[in-house]
Amino acid sequence: MLADKNEARTSLEELGEFGLIKHLTKGFSIHQESTLKGIGDDAAILDFKDSKAVVSTDLLIEGVHFDLSYMPLKHLGYKAVVVNLSDIYAMNAMATQITVSLAVSNRFPLEALEEFYSGVAAACKVYGVDLIGGDTTSSTKGMLISITAIGQAVEKDIVYRNGAKENDLLVVTGDLGGAYLGLQVLERENEVFKVNPGNQPDLEPYAYLVERQLKPEARKDVVELLEKLEVSPTAMIDISDGLSSEILHLCGQSEVGCNLYEDKIPLDPTVISTSEEFKMDSTMIALSGGEDYELLFTIDQNDFPKIKGNPSLTVIGHMCEKAEGAHLVARDSSKIPLKAQGWNSF
Amino acid sequence: MLADKNEARTSLEELGEFGLIKHLTKGFSIHQESTLKGIGDDAAILDFKDSKAVVSTDLLIEGVHFDLSYMPLKHLGYKAVVVNLSDIYAMNAMATQITVSLAVSNRFPLEALEEFYSGVAAACKVYGVDLIGGDTTSSTKGMLISITAIGQAVEKDIVYRNGAKENDLLVVTGDLGGAYLGLQVLERENEVFKVNPGNQPDLEPYAYLVERQLKPEARKDVVELLEKLEVSPTAMIDISDGLSSEILHLCGQSEVGCNLYEDKIPLDPTVISTSEEFKMDSTMIALSGGEDYELLFTIDQNDFPKIKGNPSLTVIGHMCEKAEGAHLVARDSSKIPLKAQGWNSF
Repeated sequence: MLADKNEARTSLEELGEFGLIKHLTKGFSIHQESTLKGIGDDAAILDFKDSKAVVSTDLLIEGVHFDLSYMPLKHLGYKAVVVNLSDIYAMNAMATQITVSLAVSNRFPLEALEEFYSGVAAACKVYGVDLIGGDTTSSTKGMLISITAIGQAVEKDIVYRNGAKENDLLVVTGDLGGAYLGLQVLERENEVFKVNPGNQPDLEPYAYLVERQLKPEARKDVVELLEKLEVSPTAMIDISDGLSSEILHLCGQSEVGCNLYEDKIPLDPTVISTSEEFKMDSTMIALSGGEDYELLFTIDQNDFPKIKGNPSLTVIGHMCEKAEGAHLVARDSSKIPLKAQGWNSF
Repeated sequence: MLADKNEARTSLEELGEFGLIKHLTKGFSIHQESTLKGIGDDAAILDFKDSKAVVSTDLLIEGVHFDLSYMPLKHLGYKAVVVNLSDIYAMNAMATQITVSLAVSNRFPLEALEEFYSGVAAACKVYGVDLIGGDTTSSTKGMLISITAIGQAVEKDIVYRNGAKENDLLVVTGDLGGAYLGLQVLERENEVFKVNPGNQPDLEPYAYLVERQLKPEARKDVVELLEKLEVSPTAMIDISDGLSSEILHLCGQSEVGCNLYEDKIPLDPTVISTSEEFKMDSTMIALSGGEDYELLFTIDQNDFPKIKGNPSLTVIGHMCEKAEGAHLVARDSSKIPLKAQGWNSF
């Protein structure tokens, strides 16, 4: 898993800025009908016809958002795209295009950038999005990635954060806490590797957690599922900073309160066993861990029969009056105020 | 001009990530009809109706693209936006929205970011664009800015780089070389300042050049002018890397050659006098200096009467057969092959 540092090295100066962009993007083709013109001019041209355009952007910095000592560049390229697409799906929209800008210091050879772009290409293929632009430049330190994701949706389908009503059910997709524990496992193995580079880590028992951290997926499938089930969420957000923080965003913008039931929070068995191993509370990890990129949404109670029993969707609480506030209802029925303890880059 | 380093300092940790975004963007309002939803959700929502969306993106790194020792933060915010809008105007489109992402190390207090955003706000106001999103995070070194500019245009009006035909006239807006010489002046004064901090530089004779470097403008007015004159350029690009490099882009993508006449290149008198002072060739500066953000476009010869005599537009050459290549026709009538000697960040 840890990168081999002795690979072929082609310096970026050899290609120059325009040659580099051309080289890195040459394998990308256009799939979306809405992409009239991609890379190669001053700007890309998109045609959304009667749909609305949905735009989101993110900046990822080496040493702040990712650590290349355990994050392979291909995975990083994949994850950087997925994280941005997740914001588009969180509007109940379909992602259609991305721009990818990259700054790297001269310690990165061309081959490293090719690895990164192969991950970007893989994500583009899986999610059916077109790479339509970007910028590639040098940095004075490390690697920086800026991605803008663009999507489209019919106006009536768009779901904002502010539409949750009292008595709406709170629903989450997949399971929580895996990405955070995956990071803990990788950091622990990285420390072991520093002390004893000959030691081969056995990550097999943690495969699910490591995959959640290194190769997260965005829930395009859930947006499609909701359409098929004819469920229109009243509010939606993606879980990047931890369940607690995201619930507070929905509550704040929708002006409602929330009761979240501890015993309903979906946890993978590996999350439970590894939490114990790390002597951490699995509920706290789900609440504050972040990076799960699951969707969190509210639905009218009348829609409950439509989602009941679906393995991708779990009802974890309900919205209440604003004055009641937002609480975790613990297994012992005690009520604990939710706090935004999500990840903060400052 | 050089920044006072002893101002009020509020650390970014005090506000936190969400508080910071809210604080920095609170003064921004929405002007464009196409902005349905700006900052505050997972993504922004835009409505271009029958127009096409135009998207461009740029990454600016401290120490590579700008130097804060002579670039005030407010100017930097203004310029970062303008540089991106210029790409939209170069498609003959109107800029409508931007996203601004910013990463800063902990040496930047809140007040510095406020300065930067006041420049962003000024540019938004001048160009009538809406700030619709972004990301604010910490960096491990220096300041990084990533901006995505979005615009709109009716499909028939969009001008690409690849439409220039043989015998088309080559036209440039404004004058060239000022921004590059402005940078030379600022760098010289900065060196003087390092040796003798008490010395007050007299930048008055160089005011035009310094303004071209620190506060460039994008040629929205030219896009409007061309519409008024009923001139449809056959190809267009903005001059960010120097005239020579941009002509080669037009020639390469349009598969034509070009004769550029040295004596036609528009130069401000200050550019001529300051070139002499720096013992530099003013033609070389116009060809390779870059950062002028003027527009370079080609028109059919039949459109010449429409632009003739307009003070903003100068015919500097004409396109020819591809096999002839791209040349500078010097004052002595010798022909010198054009080379892309524009600025390269690698």
